Amino acid sequence: MSIANLRQPVTLSAWARLFAPIGPQLAEVERRLQAELRHSDPFVDELAQRSFNLGGKRLRPALLLLTASALGDVNDAHLTLAAVVEMIHTATLVHDDVIDEADIRRHKETINARWSNQTSILLGDYLFTHAFYLASSLDTTFGCRTLGRATNIVCEGELLQTAASGDFELSCQQYYRIINAKTAELCACCCALGAHYAEGDQHTVSRFDSFGKHIGMAFQIADDLLDLTGEEHAVGKSLGTDLTKRRMTLPLILLRDQLPQPQQCELHALFELPSQASRTALLDWLKQAGILGLAREEALVHASRAAEQLEFLPDTPAKKSLLQLSQAAVSRCV
Amino acid sequence: MSIANLRQPVTLSAWARLFAPIGPQLAEVERRLQAELRHSDPFVDELAQRSFNLGGKRLRPALLLLTASALGDVNDAHLTLAAVVEMIHTATLVHDDVIDEADIRRHKETINARWSNQTSILLGDYLFTHAFYLASSLDTTFGCRTLGRATNIVCEGELLQTAASGDFELSCQQYYRIINAKTAELCACCCALGAHYAEGDQHTVSRFDSFGKHIGMAFQIADDLLDLTGEEHAVGKSLGTDLTKRRMTLPLILLRDQLPQPQQCELHALFELPSQASRTALLDWLKQAGILGLAREEALVHASRAAEQLEFLPDTPAKKSLLQLSQAAVSRCV
Repeated sequence: MSIANLRQPVTLSAWARLFAPIGPQLAEVERRLQAELRHSDPFVDELAQRSFNLGGKRLRPALLLLTASALGDVNDAHLTLAAVVEMIHTATLVHDDVIDEADIRRHKETINARWSNQTSILLGDYLFTHAFYLASSLDTTFGCRTLGRATNIVCEGELLQTAASGDFELSCQQYYRIINAKTAELCACCCALGAHYAEGDQHTVSRFDSFGKHIGMAFQIADDLLDLTGEEHAVGKSLGTDLTKRRMTLPLILLRDQLPQPQQCELHALFELPSQASRTALLDWLKQAGILGLAREEALVHASRAAEQLEFLPDTPAKKSLLQLSQAAVSRCV
Repeated sequence: MSIANLRQPVTLSAWARLFAPIGPQLAEVERRLQAELRHSDPFVDELAQRSFNLGGKRLRPALLLLTASALGDVNDAHLTLAAVVEMIHTATLVHDDVIDEADIRRHKETINARWSNQTSILLGDYLFTHAFYLASSLDTTFGCRTLGRATNIVCEGELLQTAASGDFELSCQQYYRIINAKTAELCACCCALGAHYAEGDQHTVSRFDSFGKHIGMAFQIADDLLDLTGEEHAVGKSLGTDLTKRRMTLPLILLRDQLPQPQQCELHALFELPSQASRTALLDWLKQAGILGLAREEALVHASRAAEQLEFLPDTPAKKSLLQLSQAAVSRCV
């Protein structure tokens, strides 16, 4: 598959086909999410319903439910937790859109664009706290603890990313630390919760945790590529944000590290003054230097490692979906 | 006590004297808070430590611990939950300062002023999620559930406040609904948790919940008065925010409702164009119309109702502190 395919995002219906083995359960999660987010006040209700439509493909609930299905039956705790993880993810999206000053998400105006930053901050908080409230309806504190820890690490990752903004010297290791925290951790948490509540033993839970971590890394590397190479109207969200926010992502890091000193300075200059022109120049440079392929290879390595974690499982439709998902993470084409 | 006293905030050491019956336990909560907020990354560590110093008087942990002490001994669950409620309160303060565009809190630069709005949003999220993680270290989900529900209502209150911004027609009832949610709910939650984890029966928990609710209302009405009448250098935080954000608070609502139509229009005009001059003019108007005294009376009614809830308790130093606290809420002088 050529790099060009990275510019073609997977449609929602293609994701839905991929999630077919847990279709009815995912529909039930949608119903629960929508019901949970109803509110007697019309303003809060409108915001909550709007946020419900922000998330899109429901990757995190799907990871949790597919894990459960690969190990047995999806139960009520899984359904609750699937709604919880989507609510947490949506909370982070709503806050991310303020931080990134993004106007578009899923082809729609973001909350900050339609209302205000203030409203977005409070709506994100509302979703976070509602998610924890819902998680505490389970029998034990395990769900709250696992989610609390993972979500805290997500915030840590976002803080580290903010601190690294403008740092042209960011190392590959630091980049991986950031995306591991801000993205991979919650995916790992979804899979670990799915396995734990399917009564998986410690080894099984740990395998799924690892699967989630690698698939999360693959997704984020692909997302970072898409932010450079994608087209807004096709992807349906604000792009070029990493450059605007002067964030070094994998393609730029790989390019920088293979350049001789004088050209590094040239790259640094482009990085310091982000514009549409510098984005275009960078993209040409990345293509000529073969960096897009290299970064994609990195994402594929994580997709393969994710797949390896599931070798111990018997073949089921859910396992097949999880394996396809690890490929789709990178290609964004099912 | 004259209205003038409202302009003199209670010093931190005066609060500490008021909290004397739980002094050692409050010191232990400080140690736990500080230890919980250490981080291996220097940037996250600096932010977390800074946030630790933002909260000030530790009202919410004190409410929880004084309740526990009034009913028996303070136990380990109380200490954990006291750290949790302070962390949640700090998270809301960090986000409030972004929303209010405030530069000063506790005589120090706010996180948004020192770093950025982005950093503040993420730090608030970090504190929220860390608080829930800590709450989930308890044996049962009761703490998480109670805190999740209360914190969700706090966010709801803040959202309603945002929606009401600029609404000159806001009714007294709507104002009370907002402050009940955004402030009183968390105070009630602190007292209810203190009582529940002291093995108080349902009646006792409900009495303390009611005590917390009324003391929270008294505090917020007094805060809203202080926002109009206080002086920044004395209070140590950005003031006049309600006017700048065009929020109708109790004094303005009471004034509006007693004015004939033409003067209501005059008040509306002042409200629409907030400035230092209009703040001064409003303050004179409020004084002449005797509104400051009326609003203070309302706060005193809540302080008295709070005190009534504790009549069933035997006399102890903790009970005495709680009663003094309900007075201090209004007078801000111990």
